[in-house]
Amino acid sequence: MRFEIVTIGAELLDGTLADTNTAAIASRLARLGGEVVRGTTVPDEPDAIRESLEDALSEADAVVAAGGLGTTSDDLTKQVAARVFGKSLALDEDVLARVRSRFEERGRAMPEINVSQAMVPEGARPIPNRIGTAPGLVLEDDGRLLFLLPGVPAEMVAMLDEYVVPFLEGRGLRRTTEERVIRTTGISESALAEMIGPTARRLARTEISYLPSITGVDVRISCRAGGSRSPGRTADSAEERLAAIIGPYVYARGNESLEEVVGYLLTMQGKTISVAESCTGGLLGFRLTAVPGSSDYTRGGVIAYSNDLKKRLLKVKAGTLKKHGAVSGEVALEMAEGAVKRCRSDLAVSITGIAGPGGGTKDKPVGLVWMAVAAGEKACAREERFAGSRDAIRTQAAQSALDLLRRTLLGLTQPGERRA
Amino acid sequence: MRFEIVTIGAELLDGTLADTNTAAIASRLARLGGEVVRGTTVPDEPDAIRESLEDALSEADAVVAAGGLGTTSDDLTKQVAARVFGKSLALDEDVLARVRSRFEERGRAMPEINVSQAMVPEGARPIPNRIGTAPGLVLEDDGRLLFLLPGVPAEMVAMLDEYVVPFLEGRGLRRTTEERVIRTTGISESALAEMIGPTARRLARTEISYLPSITGVDVRISCRAGGSRSPGRTADSAEERLAAIIGPYVYARGNESLEEVVGYLLTMQGKTISVAESCTGGLLGFRLTAVPGSSDYTRGGVIAYSNDLKKRLLKVKAGTLKKHGAVSGEVALEMAEGAVKRCRSDLAVSITGIAGPGGGTKDKPVGLVWMAVAAGEKACAREERFAGSRDAIRTQAAQSALDLLRRTLLGLTQPGERRA
Repeated sequence: MRFEIVTIGAELLDGTLADTNTAAIASRLARLGGEVVRGTTVPDEPDAIRESLEDALSEADAVVAAGGLGTTSDDLTKQVAARVFGKSLALDEDVLARVRSRFEERGRAMPEINVSQAMVPEGARPIPNRIGTAPGLVLEDDGRLLFLLPGVPAEMVAMLDEYVVPFLEGRGLRRTTEERVIRTTGISESALAEMIGPTARRLARTEISYLPSITGVDVRISCRAGGSRSPGRTADSAEERLAAIIGPYVYARGNESLEEVVGYLLTMQGKTISVAESCTGGLLGFRLTAVPGSSDYTRGGVIAYSNDLKKRLLKVKAGTLKKHGAVSGEVALEMAEGAVKRCRSDLAVSITGIAGPGGGTKDKPVGLVWMAVAAGEKACAREERFAGSRDAIRTQAAQSALDLLRRTLLGLTQPGERRA
Repeated sequence: MRFEIVTIGAELLDGTLADTNTAAIASRLARLGGEVVRGTTVPDEPDAIRESLEDALSEADAVVAAGGLGTTSDDLTKQVAARVFGKSLALDEDVLARVRSRFEERGRAMPEINVSQAMVPEGARPIPNRIGTAPGLVLEDDGRLLFLLPGVPAEMVAMLDEYVVPFLEGRGLRRTTEERVIRTTGISESALAEMIGPTARRLARTEISYLPSITGVDVRISCRAGGSRSPGRTADSAEERLAAIIGPYVYARGNESLEEVVGYLLTMQGKTISVAESCTGGLLGFRLTAVPGSSDYTRGGVIAYSNDLKKRLLKVKAGTLKKHGAVSGEVALEMAEGAVKRCRSDLAVSITGIAGPGGGTKDKPVGLVWMAVAAGEKACAREERFAGSRDAIRTQAAQSALDLLRRTLLGLTQPGERRA
């Protein structure tokens, strides 16, 4: 079934609000195997609304529209939709009673202006609004199907889940796609595409998309029904095949975060962790402790932003700082080893780097980051050169250091690792 | 000038991602007095992209399109746009050099597949991409003007501000409205509205909007041209009048952050700062060091997530922990005082609280947070009770602690402060 989504509201086209309704509608339709062929956003102007609705209805089997069902003068969607379907508006007593009771529940009398919310195109089905006052509508005639929903996200989503989805299932739609996500870090989108592209293209009824962000690339696997296998089984085997190819760059599946994975590994191995941070200033500790229950394995750590604190709190040797500089593998290693001793943890992870914008030199440019993991007697350090803003560099540094910790816990080594 | 916005990407129509680019583009165009007449979102399919671009170009004076400029198979926008303008793609050596250097900056060789990013429609102007590798493009012929930008928001916004806006100003667009933002924290939207509403309603050609977030409420002041004064002068005086009424709840103007303001005050007063964090796990340190040059006044600190580290690294007395518990004003004060001594800083700020979801009790529920600031001999602590998720509670705790530091530096006291 082909869908179009129309979102209505001046505030969506003047930069006041980002449109989250299209994504909310699209995710429900996608799960039902519906294909959204286009999304359109128009201001609250009768001509623009009429044009977009007629256009969408002529292209798609069904249209979901959100916005413009309130009472204020710029809320015109319902009148326009009635005209598009050649119907006139009539007062619906049941709807009026519901709108009135909404106000009474709040101990207020219904303002006269809200009567307009009970005006319904002839033959249209009202969709009850559990949260707000404006009801939704379903309009249908020869082959055209239109859902009108309010623009307020909370109301819109509730009506979508409680009415539109069941209505469409009543029309025979079923969950027909299964999705999996493989989360990777330390590899670029293009390198990933070269790596798994050939295999991915041979997978039946499976689509791959790459979702790059500053902390890594998520690979989304979407499998359609068909053939002898269920979409779920198709997705499982696609996920396994691709994850096996990507190998050590895979840090998680689904929406699990890197800190959750690291926390899981630490818990499984009964180990405790501490941090020693310079340029990230606490981001590593913040991320490790973002996981509920992380106090079971996170001892804490030291933010050694100044060299003086590196020496006094982490026992980094003055000679090492002098000889190699604060941003070096040697200092990163001594920081991690210092944190293990100071915090009496089994492992420690450290970061020292130049986040910029100032402080860079020719041989130590902005973006140069050294990170290390100390684990008992063993320790390893890695060098990275990140691009972007101070924030981007610090975000990438923390992700990369957590991944070094993950690889250490899994016994995986990485190109360019230096072992102490 | 009439604009249309086209956003491209399957992930925007299957519920994977909400489209934030349309709002980001629209806000820039609105400030230039441009009118956005429609937004369209289409999947990465040549026919859909071609149709939407042709349609938009025929309706509007200019079109801004975002998405589909990467290297993976689903990135087709550039090829389609070239066809729409009847141009063929040719390799642009300068662009290729820039793409290659992006990789070299990261110490990586450019994968062959990225050569496609340097293919440019004849006569098109490339738009440099400071953050990522995919360049943007401007295509223009008889009356049609198209900007192609990548879909990654950070890259898209940077190219919008650094190229598209200046380009359009070169075409004669001018700022017709002036905006000011007053940033507040520690006061609710409704309390703010009661405080400044009456005055705000009397201001000529001025609109006020409240932008609440978890860290505070921004008051947006938007002034139109007209009358004898320039919108800029109108905005300046409106800002001064409203800020004077809001008083100590104002922490910044424009887009300045609380950590920038605190950094400015520390620099002016020639003082150094350190942190002692329990439930925030490093967020305070991370935020203080987010400011370029913060190494001049930030010494570092201790993440004392475990009570053992509170005692050993911050010298919190075992008796205090036993008598008052880790989440108490007494412990917060000893943590801050311990950080001052340990880090040899002039001031220190501390946080100890229950971020949840577990660990709450009847008299110490999830959301209870104590924070303290130690300054030489003086010290003060405050109790807060925050609602929401673990992340929400930690975010509010850090904001509130930084504001306590700001007020301390300014000699402002706050209701409910406890002085040691």
